[in-house]
Amino acid sequence: MRMVDIIAKKRNGDTLTEQEISFFIKEYMKENIPDYQVSALMMAIYYQGMTQEETASLTKNMVESGDIIDLSPIKGHKVDKHSTGGVGDKTTFIVGPLVAAAAIPVAKMSGRGLGHTGGTIDKLESIPGFKVELTNQQFIDNVNKFKLSVVGQTGNLAPADKKLYALRDVTATVDSIPLIASSIMSKKIASGADSIVLDVKTGSGAFMKSLQDSKRLAEEMVTIGNQLDRQTVAVISDMNQPLGYEIGNANEVKEAVEVLQGKRIEDLRELAIELAAHMTILAGVYQDYSEATQSLESLIDNGDALKCFMDFIEAQGGDITVIQDLSQLPGSSYHMEVKADQGGYIHEMEADEIGVAAMHLGAGRATKDDAINHGVGITLQKKIGDYVDHGDTLAILNSDQEDVEQIISIVKNAYTIKPEKATRQKMIYEVIK
Amino acid sequence: MRMVDIIAKKRNGDTLTEQEISFFIKEYMKENIPDYQVSALMMAIYYQGMTQEETASLTKNMVESGDIIDLSPIKGHKVDKHSTGGVGDKTTFIVGPLVAAAAIPVAKMSGRGLGHTGGTIDKLESIPGFKVELTNQQFIDNVNKFKLSVVGQTGNLAPADKKLYALRDVTATVDSIPLIASSIMSKKIASGADSIVLDVKTGSGAFMKSLQDSKRLAEEMVTIGNQLDRQTVAVISDMNQPLGYEIGNANEVKEAVEVLQGKRIEDLRELAIELAAHMTILAGVYQDYSEATQSLESLIDNGDALKCFMDFIEAQGGDITVIQDLSQLPGSSYHMEVKADQGGYIHEMEADEIGVAAMHLGAGRATKDDAINHGVGITLQKKIGDYVDHGDTLAILNSDQEDVEQIISIVKNAYTIKPEKATRQKMIYEVIK
Repeated sequence: MRMVDIIAKKRNGDTLTEQEISFFIKEYMKENIPDYQVSALMMAIYYQGMTQEETASLTKNMVESGDIIDLSPIKGHKVDKHSTGGVGDKTTFIVGPLVAAAAIPVAKMSGRGLGHTGGTIDKLESIPGFKVELTNQQFIDNVNKFKLSVVGQTGNLAPADKKLYALRDVTATVDSIPLIASSIMSKKIASGADSIVLDVKTGSGAFMKSLQDSKRLAEEMVTIGNQLDRQTVAVISDMNQPLGYEIGNANEVKEAVEVLQGKRIEDLRELAIELAAHMTILAGVYQDYSEATQSLESLIDNGDALKCFMDFIEAQGGDITVIQDLSQLPGSSYHMEVKADQGGYIHEMEADEIGVAAMHLGAGRATKDDAINHGVGITLQKKIGDYVDHGDTLAILNSDQEDVEQIISIVKNAYTIKPEKATRQKMIYEVIK
Repeated sequence: MRMVDIIAKKRNGDTLTEQEISFFIKEYMKENIPDYQVSALMMAIYYQGMTQEETASLTKNMVESGDIIDLSPIKGHKVDKHSTGGVGDKTTFIVGPLVAAAAIPVAKMSGRGLGHTGGTIDKLESIPGFKVELTNQQFIDNVNKFKLSVVGQTGNLAPADKKLYALRDVTATVDSIPLIASSIMSKKIASGADSIVLDVKTGSGAFMKSLQDSKRLAEEMVTIGNQLDRQTVAVISDMNQPLGYEIGNANEVKEAVEVLQGKRIEDLRELAIELAAHMTILAGVYQDYSEATQSLESLIDNGDALKCFMDFIEAQGGDITVIQDLSQLPGSSYHMEVKADQGGYIHEMEADEIGVAAMHLGAGRATKDDAINHGVGITLQKKIGDYVDHGDTLAILNSDQEDVEQIISIVKNAYTIKPEKATRQKMIYEVIK
């Protein structure tokens, strides 16, 4: 078997066999196939696509290129949740304790990563004392006892995906739906869960800007999951504006806790319950959507979900007094207002740009050696559909820098205000099973 | 400027600017751009093609990546001829002396290369004493005096093309007409001629199997030549069977000399006169096609072309007694006949396969360190349109190996014989100016 023939075959629009895909991944990982052949193949796939079987086979081979986490010492049906990423997305902090409250074990390994804000574990580290490094045994014990634990990613998950992604990033071959789908799914499957709920974001702050592309990506991922024996459900959710009102690290934890405390931050609560509902149905805890959502609503309202969150934080060394009094979470020195230049209704928000503004404040990392400032971020005051008068506050920048003129401009320009009324965004577009 | 943006631009079907193409070639040659980005770009070009301006710009930048031969010390309008390659193609040995006899200077640098037989200079080395290494001054003096000289390629012509071609070869990105056209033209333009006549082969023994593709390639090359100020004419000629009857090295020289001596080997004579006619018209020696062909016919018939050939060989140290007595050229130990298994008319010949057979006999090189055997080759007895009885000789293998059973099979299987009459191939399909 020769890589050049595999490239030519895909280039001509033919379907690669399981053997060919396996050869390519295995030999690439052994460095017997050079990057320049792989990038040519990636570009051919960009144009020719892949069949469901090819995509599943690529995913499977990427999973098998590294460690596969064994969650079998954890009792019960393990369901993982994955978001394709957006601005202000703190649903994990609500969904995790919520499904834990429904007795589903949540064993989450999470990354730090680059982005507008830190990753899940960076955000959790806003809580004084919270530790993300547990031994494997502690992790398993905590999940068995408290139903929820979140640790930093250990093991070498899907290294073929890492290598391929780094190459695609510099060869303009990222934007291929089968390649994106197999990349995400390879990491999820290697993480060991029995079932997977995907939160596929769509809109200005999402990787996929159009509903059509988001739907195609969701369908591809669900198909891969099912082909590789993981029950998979994808929820397509709105990312035309940040989720909730807080963007940052400590302030995102704060907003999630407020939802667990019963505060009606509607978009965030709706999405969290939607995702949790599909997880609980996959785990067999509830029979149908209506039962699931009603039960989950009450698990928030009766404080069970919040209690699960506190137990989880405490078990990992976190100071729960900051949860009881959220004002003790890290904050910032300055609070600058972004004011509307004109009156009218907010029609659009460039969620991406608001994320960029949060990164400029220090909430995220541009390179992997950057430090996260847990206390800074953005607190939105207005979102799509809201009315503002000239001079009203659109958002507050929580900053440790005094000079934020440029960041104020970015946030201000991210809002589109027009005189006519604007409809509010819907949160859930579609569920793909 | 970033290479990843250039790849993405071409991937999306946009047109690259002169600056972008120049950046890519220059930085690639400086090794500031890695192969894996270039192969992704090549694959994007495979799908998206290139405009005439892009192709001309790529060619120009490849020319400028290395030496450009200065032929200005040679008096007169220099016309080069280039063939896209076929089996049994010895037209250079006829065309060169023929246009020299018409007083056009032919300063040819030629390669050895890989292939079914040796390259032009390998074939000339069949003549005892013939030297292909001349000083630059000797080369120029010989052309000025005898109108014809052929030397081994010196200088570093279009190294960007060499580097790109080697990469395309292993990434399934060879088969792109703009890339093939720019590759050929970059070397021709760097060789310094004022005008170029291209012999674009079409058919079973050609790189381009279909007339349509051959025509597209011819048009691309003519456009590039004209955009880069080289008058360029392309002749699309038949390669559905070997040219003439001899395939090898010494035997190809012999057949070419026979044509110069007036022997009517029709396809070979027709093509040589056609190519020479366009060269002489480009050089302004003759006014029109009819004048040119008639004059060139007489330059063969009156012995002037043969005399030019002898002078050229003698000037480069060759023993002209072997030209006067062709039986003294290198030969082989064995002559094995390939016989027809059935009677009928010859409808098709897989010219490529006959070339492969010649290579197996030792006439060509598979790798650059292989030695050429000048005396071996194939002498065809029958070609398309001919009638054979069962047991008639189709071809003779001139071999230094006794066991040629497998090679006999290859040649036999290359012939398609059917009971019904077959039409002969036409030689010239089209002329693109």
